Amino acid sequence: MTLVDRMLDTYPKDLGGVDRERLRTCIEACVACAQACTACADACLGEDAVADLRTCIRTCADCADVCDATGRVVSRHTGYDANLTRAVLAACATACRACADECERHASMHEHCRVCAEACRRCEQACRDLLAGPG
Amino acid sequence: MTLVDRMLDTYPKDLGGVDRERLRTCIEACVACAQACTACADACLGEDAVADLRTCIRTCADCADVCDATGRVVSRHTGYDANLTRAVLAACATACRACADECERHASMHEHCRVCAEACRRCEQACRDLLAGPG
Amino acid sequence: MTLVDRMLDTYPKDLGGVDRERLRTCIEACVACAQACTACADACLGEDAVADLRTCIRTCADCADVCDATGRVVSRHTGYDANLTRAVLAACATACRACADECERHASMHEHCRVCAEACRRCEQACRDLLAGPG
Amino acid sequence: MTLVDRMLDTYPKDLGGVDRERLRTCIEACVACAQACTACADACLGEDAVADLRTCIRTCADCADVCDATGRVVSRHTGYDANLTRAVLAACATACRACADECERHASMHEHCRVCAEACRRCEQACRDLLAGPG
Repeated sequence: MTLVDRMLDTYPKDLGGVDRERLRTCIEACVACAQACTACADACLGEDAVADLRTCIRTCADCADVCDATGRVVSRHTGYDANLTRAVLAACATACRACADECERHASMHEHCRVCAEACRRCEQACRDLLAGPG
Repeated sequence: MTLVDRMLDTYPKDLGGVDRERLRTCIEACVACAQACTACADACLGEDAVADLRTCIRTCADCADVCDATGRVVSRHTGYDANLTRAVLAACATACRACADECERHASMHEHCRVCAEACRRCEQACRDLLAGPG
Repeated sequence: MTLVDRMLDTYPKDLGGVDRERLRTCIEACVACAQACTACADACLGEDAVADLRTCIRTCADCADVCDATGRVVSRHTGYDANLTRAVLAACATACRACADECERHASMHEHCRVCAEACRRCEQACRDLLAGPG
Repeated sequence: MTLVDRMLDTYPKDLGGVDRERLRTCIEACVACAQACTACADACLGEDAVADLRTCIRTCADCADVCDATGRVVSRHTGYDANLTRAVLAACATACRACADECERHASMHEHCRVCAEACRRCEQACRDLLAGPG
């Protein structure tokens, strides 16, 4: 049982109609993707070819910020606002797709971009699954 | 000239087709709103009637996180991605509206909610103006 | 192999004299603790006894913010600054200790506080181990 | 009267023994410095000489994260923990000094580094003044 799971388990009230497994997956994906994007931006900065990786560094920085905020929003259940949560999940899916697309352009040259793109794809999917609601 | 203005002024490349004044207003509104929401969540937590302010505390926390992320995204101009930026601005406008609506419910009782609601309305408008593009 | 591990593995340059295993543990602990603290603040907010949990909500919010920032700083290796990193790790250890102490006060009543306190103790230790350097 | 001022003014309880003016200055300096550092990292990324600005980009990214976290911590007054706040202020002063030193190395070449260094110096001072307590 992961820490995210244990925190969901010990929430004192009902979690509402949310799909509990999709929620857990989304929280974990946002947190992991934020870290991977921060690390990928830094790894790109450390490459000899840094000048070719400007867009990748920038998109990773944006994606890290959006995933961080989204991971926080979906970790909260008290006073849930469906409109707000859905808008944030949609923005996060868009940021993850943009970052995955950009990182994939460099994946054959830079392993960190390949790993980061995977994390972004997983997070995009997790946001879309949570948006789609109970399966 | 504000610090935000000076940083925009010294950006080494063209800022693209963006409306410079709307961009500045949006950056400043996001940063100010994030701080006001963090402070309002804390002020609500300090109220005797904290149990009636749960939703307000939660919405302020979400709005602070989304405004922080948005303020960062719109402070970056290198490798600009219109899709990503627009999705984030849309989410921020939605978060600000939700928080303004909630804070206004308590504005007659709690001055900090009144001030915070103003900051949220201003930020929502600034995000929508930037989304609307050059006037 | 965790995602954090894979990002460390694919960093293009040398990681310096850092203890690689301690670094990985610290990054993972910061990220996990930030999420747990955000969730615990929210769970406390959802409790009937919210008025007794004000300090806990506040300390969790602070600890989440400091762990988030620290997790980002230790995820970067390019242009490493030992002074900056050490100051941030020290602040994070202090924040985690404060939050663990506060959460433990409520651990017998609220399971989420017990789980969160564990995450804080683990993160405090991981920060101190990384500060202590190669074992 | 600034928004930060108005939020301090409407806090429902006593702010404790804190020097109110130093507190306001510190909150405003943290928030402004975080934004300037995010913008400076991005401006450096946009420079032709990006390869010479790696350390500057990294230090700006760290400083932005630490100032953001510190601005949030000092914006909260409920359940105040002096140890935690002091550790965070000390880390922020160290991050700001490191970033100011690094940006000053490039100030004659890049105006954004000059402006950012000023914001860092102001924030370092504001953190130290708040640490020093009532004057």
